[in-house]
Amino acid sequence: MKKITVNASTSYEILVEKNLLTSCGEYIKAVTNAEKIAVITDDNVDSLYSEKVINSLKSEGFKVCKFVFEHGEAQKCSETLNDIYDFLVENEITRTDCIAALGGGVVGDISGYAAATYLRGIDFIQLPTTLLAQVDSSVGGKTAIDLPSGKNLVGAFKQPKLVLCDTDTLKSLSDDIFSDGMGEVIKYGMIKSSALFSLICSKNIRDDENLLTEVISQCISIKRDIVEADEFEKGERMLLNFGHTLGHAIEKAGNFTDITHGKAVGIGMSLMTEICEKNELCQSGTYKMLNNCLSLYNIPTKTKYDLSLLSDFCLNDKKRNGGNINIIICTEIGKSEVKKLTIDEFKALIR
Amino acid sequence: MKKITVNASTSYEILVEKNLLTSCGEYIKAVTNAEKIAVITDDNVDSLYSEKVINSLKSEGFKVCKFVFEHGEAQKCSETLNDIYDFLVENEITRTDCIAALGGGVVGDISGYAAATYLRGIDFIQLPTTLLAQVDSSVGGKTAIDLPSGKNLVGAFKQPKLVLCDTDTLKSLSDDIFSDGMGEVIKYGMIKSSALFSLICSKNIRDDENLLTEVISQCISIKRDIVEADEFEKGERMLLNFGHTLGHAIEKAGNFTDITHGKAVGIGMSLMTEICEKNELCQSGTYKMLNNCLSLYNIPTKTKYDLSLLSDFCLNDKKRNGGNINIIICTEIGKSEVKKLTIDEFKALIR
Repeated sequence: MKKITVNASTSYEILVEKNLLTSCGEYIKAVTNAEKIAVITDDNVDSLYSEKVINSLKSEGFKVCKFVFEHGEAQKCSETLNDIYDFLVENEITRTDCIAALGGGVVGDISGYAAATYLRGIDFIQLPTTLLAQVDSSVGGKTAIDLPSGKNLVGAFKQPKLVLCDTDTLKSLSDDIFSDGMGEVIKYGMIKSSALFSLICSKNIRDDENLLTEVISQCISIKRDIVEADEFEKGERMLLNFGHTLGHAIEKAGNFTDITHGKAVGIGMSLMTEICEKNELCQSGTYKMLNNCLSLYNIPTKTKYDLSLLSDFCLNDKKRNGGNINIIICTEIGKSEVKKLTIDEFKALIR
Repeated sequence: MKKITVNASTSYEILVEKNLLTSCGEYIKAVTNAEKIAVITDDNVDSLYSEKVINSLKSEGFKVCKFVFEHGEAQKCSETLNDIYDFLVENEITRTDCIAALGGGVVGDISGYAAATYLRGIDFIQLPTTLLAQVDSSVGGKTAIDLPSGKNLVGAFKQPKLVLCDTDTLKSLSDDIFSDGMGEVIKYGMIKSSALFSLICSKNIRDDENLLTEVISQCISIKRDIVEADEFEKGERMLLNFGHTLGHAIEKAGNFTDITHGKAVGIGMSLMTEICEKNELCQSGTYKMLNNCLSLYNIPTKTKYDLSLLSDFCLNDKKRNGGNINIIICTEIGKSEVKKLTIDEFKALIR
């Protein structure tokens, strides 16, 4: 088992191992005094893993209630959030009880935000079941919902008490959803580790269980190091947004349903690196190496949306600061930096 | 001018003085790098003070936008919150901009919650215009909205960058709304300061401007000391809930429209102290002294609602912890303690 300790404003552990869900109750019992656990999940994940999780929780003496919502990014909204609050009240969840998020990034984000705000904050456990959620949402404490006008525009920083990454759950992912997670995995290689980048480019890691566990824990460790240095995103943490400003704009252009997050980030990284290479802001050849790796995992590198439309969306993104916007560029494989541009400089660069 | 410094997770100042709103821009300029200030207020306050505040902000070079919602506790809900988020997005408020809450407790609570959650948190300034907001909501960093099932069930801890208590704004309050604030003022005397209690019982402080400034800053100082010792309400801060568990239940029984917060707290304190005196949990005579003081400020001491109904509402309150509930009792004027009761003990005591 891989164990990664995160020392943020509170300290917690992330465990990576196969078959963790079967004994999740035991691990959770060790980190919370809750009487009741409110399991929050979506309809896809519910049919696969809820029974296993709830059995384990009950065998440790927890009272358990469950809230299931329809899967998909479109549900990460204030309506679902209000339904979750009502469910927590109806089930008399108190300040000393706990929410467990069982599912992918959408489930983790909205459940974490509910845990951050219900009664001004209760305990929170993450049981991420997608590659994307395991390498990305599970560490860092960012929680959020979307507004009609943009993604993750409302949220809070909320550190979980524990994260259990059961690698067996990745077997049930479609190739498409697995690729989605690989978008973020490739990002970690690009911004911080040429060794990780080489590892994932050498062959498709999907079918090598040990390699997969190794890659997941390397990604988590990279994110952990960055988040510990900058929990509230004032500096280095912005590197994690590589590919995300354009990526979010692409998601928004597609109304959050046209393309998944990791793939949008893949395109965002590719577009940004292409622009950087044209402007001699990164080492020559970076763009080609990135695109080869993205292709190995069937992640697209182009979008049908016009760059000027995307650039307008970027300027409404929360990464904008006053009259400036921060962009992240990968200067060579494994190295990256934040660049602060004026709105005009940004438009000139992108368009 | 009275100046109280609060050292919570972040440090900030509360200023108490007449005519502060006229020069608010100057004070705000000193604590935020924002380009834009989003002023959030209700329709009552808007007509009285918005112009003064906005002029001062503009004279300091801030860009200003304004959101006005209908006054009243019923508006402290997710619908108004979503309207505020939409307003912030439309006005392109970014992470480095700032929200200023101009108004009473409802305005402060919902604006503070919006500031805590929009883009995962932006700067926040409080300009409280009621006695209740100046002595209570302005210090402690608690922000919240109500759910249909209860008051303040969703919220966050968010410390402001600055609080300006302009005592001139209290002149525009009706006697009724002034009394509402006195409910909380009396609470501070009851839980922590027999000297303050004597001061406010000696005569009605409304018309003595200097005395009023003194009393407000004493209340803020008491709350500041408690909050600094216990920012996230794990222990001593619970004392501030004296009168609030029953008070909230009374507000809920009246559907949050029948009675104002401070008056409900007044009744809550009176009921709880009556019960305590009957059970010899407080010094004899405390109940009478409290009721005399409440009467001086025209605060009711009785409710039309049945105690068993109120006790049921209490048990759904967020002050409940698992199978227990914490109640606050005033053992003698100026002294108080937290008592942890089982649900059955609580029912037996109240009914």
